[in-house]
Amino acid sequence: MQHLETETTKKKVKGKMAKEKKLVESITSRDVDFAQWYTDVVKKAELCDYSAVKGCFNYLPNGYALWERIMGDLDGRFKAYGVKNVSLPVLIPESLLEVEADHVEGFAPEVAWVTHGGMERLQERLCVRPTSEVLFCDLWRKVVKSYRDLPKIWNQWNTVLRWEKTSRPFLRSREFMWQEGHTLHATYEEAENLTLDMLHIYEDCYRDALAIPFVSGRKAEHEKFAGAQDTYTIEALMYDGRALQSATSHFFGNKFPDAFGIKYVDKNNEYQSCYETSWGFSARSIGGIIMVHGDDSGLVLPPRIAPIECRVIPVASHKEGVTEKAFALVEELKKAGYRVDIDDSDKSPGWKFADQEMVGIPTRIEIGPKEIESGKLIVVRRDTRERIEVAAAEITVKLHEITEQIHHDMYAKAEKFLKDHIYEATNIEDMKAKFQESRGFVKACWCGDPECEGEVKYVTGGAGTRCLIEDEEFISDTCIWCGKPAKHMVYWGKAY
Amino acid sequence: MQHLETETTKKKVKGKMAKEKKLVESITSRDVDFAQWYTDVVKKAELCDYSAVKGCFNYLPNGYALWERIMGDLDGRFKAYGVKNVSLPVLIPESLLEVEADHVEGFAPEVAWVTHGGMERLQERLCVRPTSEVLFCDLWRKVVKSYRDLPKIWNQWNTVLRWEKTSRPFLRSREFMWQEGHTLHATYEEAENLTLDMLHIYEDCYRDALAIPFVSGRKAEHEKFAGAQDTYTIEALMYDGRALQSATSHFFGNKFPDAFGIKYVDKNNEYQSCYETSWGFSARSIGGIIMVHGDDSGLVLPPRIAPIECRVIPVASHKEGVTEKAFALVEELKKAGYRVDIDDSDKSPGWKFADQEMVGIPTRIEIGPKEIESGKLIVVRRDTRERIEVAAAEITVKLHEITEQIHHDMYAKAEKFLKDHIYEATNIEDMKAKFQESRGFVKACWCGDPECEGEVKYVTGGAGTRCLIEDEEFISDTCIWCGKPAKHMVYWGKAY
Repeated sequence: MQHLETETTKKKVKGKMAKEKKLVESITSRDVDFAQWYTDVVKKAELCDYSAVKGCFNYLPNGYALWERIMGDLDGRFKAYGVKNVSLPVLIPESLLEVEADHVEGFAPEVAWVTHGGMERLQERLCVRPTSEVLFCDLWRKVVKSYRDLPKIWNQWNTVLRWEKTSRPFLRSREFMWQEGHTLHATYEEAENLTLDMLHIYEDCYRDALAIPFVSGRKAEHEKFAGAQDTYTIEALMYDGRALQSATSHFFGNKFPDAFGIKYVDKNNEYQSCYETSWGFSARSIGGIIMVHGDDSGLVLPPRIAPIECRVIPVASHKEGVTEKAFALVEELKKAGYRVDIDDSDKSPGWKFADQEMVGIPTRIEIGPKEIESGKLIVVRRDTRERIEVAAAEITVKLHEITEQIHHDMYAKAEKFLKDHIYEATNIEDMKAKFQESRGFVKACWCGDPECEGEVKYVTGGAGTRCLIEDEEFISDTCIWCGKPAKHMVYWGKAY
Repeated sequence: MQHLETETTKKKVKGKMAKEKKLVESITSRDVDFAQWYTDVVKKAELCDYSAVKGCFNYLPNGYALWERIMGDLDGRFKAYGVKNVSLPVLIPESLLEVEADHVEGFAPEVAWVTHGGMERLQERLCVRPTSEVLFCDLWRKVVKSYRDLPKIWNQWNTVLRWEKTSRPFLRSREFMWQEGHTLHATYEEAENLTLDMLHIYEDCYRDALAIPFVSGRKAEHEKFAGAQDTYTIEALMYDGRALQSATSHFFGNKFPDAFGIKYVDKNNEYQSCYETSWGFSARSIGGIIMVHGDDSGLVLPPRIAPIECRVIPVASHKEGVTEKAFALVEELKKAGYRVDIDDSDKSPGWKFADQEMVGIPTRIEIGPKEIESGKLIVVRRDTRERIEVAAAEITVKLHEITEQIHHDMYAKAEKFLKDHIYEATNIEDMKAKFQESRGFVKACWCGDPECEGEVKYVTGGAGTRCLIEDEEFISDTCIWCGKPAKHMVYWGKAY
């Protein structure tokens, strides 16, 4: 046996003990250093931690519980739509990855290769899946023969691995948690419609569960997923003005199915091409929650996906009956269907309040001798810090009203922020100025040439095309960079 | 683009079309060829399929839905106990795997190695996790310092990879789906108790959700998990008389924590060792369900974890009102909380009945003009084929009574089978005869020497120690092989 860290353990333990004596430490202000604020929140809310493998994270109970709630919400939406869950292997043979040329070109540079199994060198390298289009096609090739076998609307919840050079918790990592949906259809139209249906499910989840507003639409040609004919994206705006690509839905046409030789026999007994889609939503969404809703006291969780909606905090718990009443309240709320916990530790009320705020629990109820005597409870909102007096007898009804109000207020606040940070520009000087003076999206026209985008990116310090705006009139006839006729109107932004 | 299989597609399609014309094909009888019967059921109930990577499977919608139900049941039990879910990386650095000597000796020969990330050769090999003890220890080393940080009762649902030489769906595969729980405690006793608590949770799940009886207990010394001080196991008896190791719970003492230098400071400010456990339950359980409950018509699912409890099958659906009534019944049952579907395809009722039986749905309701007129529905039990008349007005109450009865009857039947197939032997000739004439477990005494077990295995054609029997009086004083004093009484059996 080797003994690790025995030398340094003592020092570390001392440091930790000193920490515990303090109240929750202050975190960096998000207006002072947004990146540091983000790291502080991730760490102090105990969402995740670095692992022994560079670029891979340990998702801790608080972070994973949040992901479980998000999965539960999204999976419910999928099931209502008719999506079936499956599980395909973690490994892909190199020859399979190579079947579709654009796809392998896009992914081969960023996969991890398994070359040895047990004590033996493998005859063919296997990559740890970066995404599973080729595995689904390989399976469908075997099981889809007739029009009766279509559509296939399948999904899997898993992790994938892409050999990224840099990493940030939830935002970019070598291994990340997501769902990848893959579907196969008898017609072009059906597949195209499904691509958009899934985009809409993602939109619903962001708006109605995560309380995050967004812009959405088609990606520019050169920003599409490797091998896709169309990629649709949801782009949410973070507090620092950067965009977060938050979920994507891809339409492949018959490109992959044809490459894999997947054909079906139609009602007239004739062979036909199949049409394919894929769509993904990852734990990046947790990064979005942090950066849209968080504040200088820590995380602020949207109530509908908060693992705990309410924390009960006994005040003056040494007084007779307080602890009992607090536990009775927890039981009453649980019985009424609330996700609730209690902080009955021996820490001070101030420490407990700060801790509840740090981990972002949407409400707390303070209960002490005064509340017990008066029959009135104090519900404190995490988002506004508003203190709301509620008759104890009405708490099981009122708490729901309060958390719903929090959801709507959080969404409205974020939506106002988004709207206030969408600008327009018809010439490059204006655009540069917008990105210098403000943060957010700039609406501007573009010829469609990736070289022009590259130049814009260079002069604005990183603002690229986030998505096309296809349902509005162009604000200009010419490309903001080259002056040639505009092909697209686009949301430009700096991105994570 | 390469085009795969275009040559052979035509032939295959023709074969498939011919198949579809037939009713559900008969499967091999389980008394004629149990292995073939198993493969037939897995394939025809569309549970899983071979993938492009040897030894790895595609879990199809029917198979994965079953696993989701099992996960839901077990995860609910874990959460009620206080288990927190987390997610740790899929990759483990070689140096980390090597920290605990017995562990690396057990696992190194059967792991897959990642040697390249993107275009570069890695400085250190990473294995795809075969299990995650070392990752948890590496994390705890960082986060556990004080007695306040204990216990840690963590779990993750994932897949792991072990480079097995042979594979069978659900029973043995290179990649398999499971949960792995890992805990860390301040005292030996607390950890030891938790090891048994988790064994009991597994027992509850097998008995109360899967309707599978078992024997359970400690594993013999040489059958323990690599690095464990004690391994407890659940051993269920399959229809062919073989045992299936169905879940295991391991107590590590302070061996791993000490090797990793994990110490905590107690209330007296003194350093103390930590004590560890781990415990796992895999999709092998689906293999158990198939082999305990299945019959010659296919799968028979225990109702509590069946993804669909009841299938509504319209009969003479061309008659006016039948389809509408059938859909109305489905809605009524869904509203009452049942998991129910409908087969409204254009296939014949006979085909539909056979299909519902093949996929193991616990009940079906046949509804046609006669039922509509009489106001009586026919509920058919999958397990016994009993036809039960139920007044349509009472169906939402009665169906639950019927599915609960099915659960209890399935358990009782399997329990009788288990009890009828436990034998005793006090000499090796008797034991040989039991394994020749019968199938099941043989209770016999043993000196504890693995060499004796090896000899017994050889002469009985494969029967080894399944688990120790520690709460019963010995039936003999001597080892069934060598005649030396008996140290253990043991369930012997042939195993998957």
